[in-house]
Amino acid sequence: MTDTETTNVAVLGTGGIGKRTLRVMEHKDDMTPVALCDSGGVAVDFDGVDADDLVAADGGAVAAEGGSEVAALPSGRATDDSIADVIDVHDRIDAVLMALPNIPHSFIPETVERFADAGYEGVMVDVLKRSRVIDTMEEMEDDLVESGITFICGAGATPGFLTGAAAIGAQSFVEIEEIEIWWGVGLKSGYEGNVGTVREDIAHLDGYDLETVSEMSDDEIREVIDEHDGVLEFHDMEHADDRLLERAGICDPDKVEVGGILDVTQDEKPTTTTVRVTGTTFDGETATNTFQLDDDTSMAANVNGPALGYLRAGVFYNENGIYGLHGPAEIMPRF
Amino acid sequence: MTDTETTNVAVLGTGGIGKRTLRVMEHKDDMTPVALCDSGGVAVDFDGVDADDLVAADGGAVAAEGGSEVAALPSGRATDDSIADVIDVHDRIDAVLMALPNIPHSFIPETVERFADAGYEGVMVDVLKRSRVIDTMEEMEDDLVESGITFICGAGATPGFLTGAAAIGAQSFVEIEEIEIWWGVGLKSGYEGNVGTVREDIAHLDGYDLETVSEMSDDEIREVIDEHDGVLEFHDMEHADDRLLERAGICDPDKVEVGGILDVTQDEKPTTTTVRVTGTTFDGETATNTFQLDDDTSMAANVNGPALGYLRAGVFYNENGIYGLHGPAEIMPRF
Repeated sequence: MTDTETTNVAVLGTGGIGKRTLRVMEHKDDMTPVALCDSGGVAVDFDGVDADDLVAADGGAVAAEGGSEVAALPSGRATDDSIADVIDVHDRIDAVLMALPNIPHSFIPETVERFADAGYEGVMVDVLKRSRVIDTMEEMEDDLVESGITFICGAGATPGFLTGAAAIGAQSFVEIEEIEIWWGVGLKSGYEGNVGTVREDIAHLDGYDLETVSEMSDDEIREVIDEHDGVLEFHDMEHADDRLLERAGICDPDKVEVGGILDVTQDEKPTTTTVRVTGTTFDGETATNTFQLDDDTSMAANVNGPALGYLRAGVFYNENGIYGLHGPAEIMPRF
Repeated sequence: MTDTETTNVAVLGTGGIGKRTLRVMEHKDDMTPVALCDSGGVAVDFDGVDADDLVAADGGAVAAEGGSEVAALPSGRATDDSIADVIDVHDRIDAVLMALPNIPHSFIPETVERFADAGYEGVMVDVLKRSRVIDTMEEMEDDLVESGITFICGAGATPGFLTGAAAIGAQSFVEIEEIEIWWGVGLKSGYEGNVGTVREDIAHLDGYDLETVSEMSDDEIREVIDEHDGVLEFHDMEHADDRLLERAGICDPDKVEVGGILDVTQDEKPTTTTVRVTGTTFDGETATNTFQLDDDTSMAANVNGPALGYLRAGVFYNENGIYGLHGPAEIMPRF
């Protein structure tokens, strides 16, 4: 960790999540984006990367056709291996926020491994979604601890924000019967900037998986959406909330259910994002505590606020010598 | 810290909260109550204090008129300074849960000081309510760190559970406009066992303060309740949620409002306990996230579950060398 008043943050990936992370970070005086990368470019500036052009391009525009948006920034340059270029300056980075695709599954674990191998000692946060990736990360636990890396996994909206809310909601109870996480996203104007997220959601539909969607073109993704008249409803999603709540000792994974509705025909949420925690109290009552997000909070607000919130908690852990893997329901009152 | 698989817990005070803490702890395999005390007695047993008689007496009965309930336990004995007797065995205690009266204000800080002076190195948790006590505790911060004590302050329902829920609810926003904590308690059958809590609540009414209520008899307390037909409504309570949210960097204390309704004529809650967090998102929307406790969760469930949840988080901090003062909104994703 560098011993400065500000937290030096690297943001890997500048798609929908990465761009909005930068916008949220503008509100945090004590966090500075010092390194950014996309697949073809890197930008490093320890006074803070000027990313105005990138943030302004929000919505899918790129600097030049087929080119790298990051390379086009004032401090940017084109590169074949942009992650390697960030790793080169790892000793001046306090925290790495990974806004990378979950496709393939191995991408995030491999990226963490590259940082560890290079001697990075700091925080890594990602917004990964899939239960099975937690298993992969758990296998790396010893390496993370040995490296001095504090890895916060699943720190977006769900898993992340809503997993944490479920852990809070569980505090009335001595036994949990069911945790239901139900989300609504309206993504009309934001669709173009979030095709990657939509692609990963479609992998949860019957007949699709991450392998099939990774080979689909953007047009084919759009066709699936059109077949559903622009409204996709998901049930029993393989979101990592289940494994992350299990890690925190709250309940077995089969008691957690994640679903939701994605509507690309409107910006209004098609349903209210709600967490319901049903359990039994010590005095024998069965009851349900409820957490609801206002329909006017966007998906972007609910991913990026928590991601930086958990990043900050990770910095506190790391400064105090707490390394290894930590989920959003563990950095909390424990169950 | 003792190096055993179970957390050895001392419970100071066996009024309404202390008794129910013991009942909740029965559901926690890895927590053992090893020391209990009330004003006239102490019981110590490192295999776990047999407190069945005490828990069964829930509702205000005492072992003998004017006597100590704790002294009457199988491992109990009468004593003039029961806290000193717990302090005597401090090196086998991992965590101290203080279910002590907040009257006078200095009682809890002085108790912490006695443990620190004796060389105790472990966790202390209390459910203190008043904003001004946070200031007193903050003055002790250096002593706590030097002693190796991790002190979790305000870890009951409010402050505590609902403060934590507010901190979670804030994660959508870059700026908080208002946090409203509104509680409902139905306390007909539980009244006798919770006179101490009711007394502290009455101190929030116009014309009363902690000094005046501390001099009132139980009959006089009852008279005040009867004057209000058994239903007391509170606004702008001096609950420490405000200072604890400020400590966590979430908002200024004047943006936090705590109130509620206490109804001693029924066990049903007169109003639903609700936390509303209103803020502005990075993308410019003003919105309100909401956390609601089911009406079927009792005050006792909502105080004691979180108290032990925060105690466990405190043990994790202490084991990792994190000492000093920590509030319920800090052991969380940071804002």
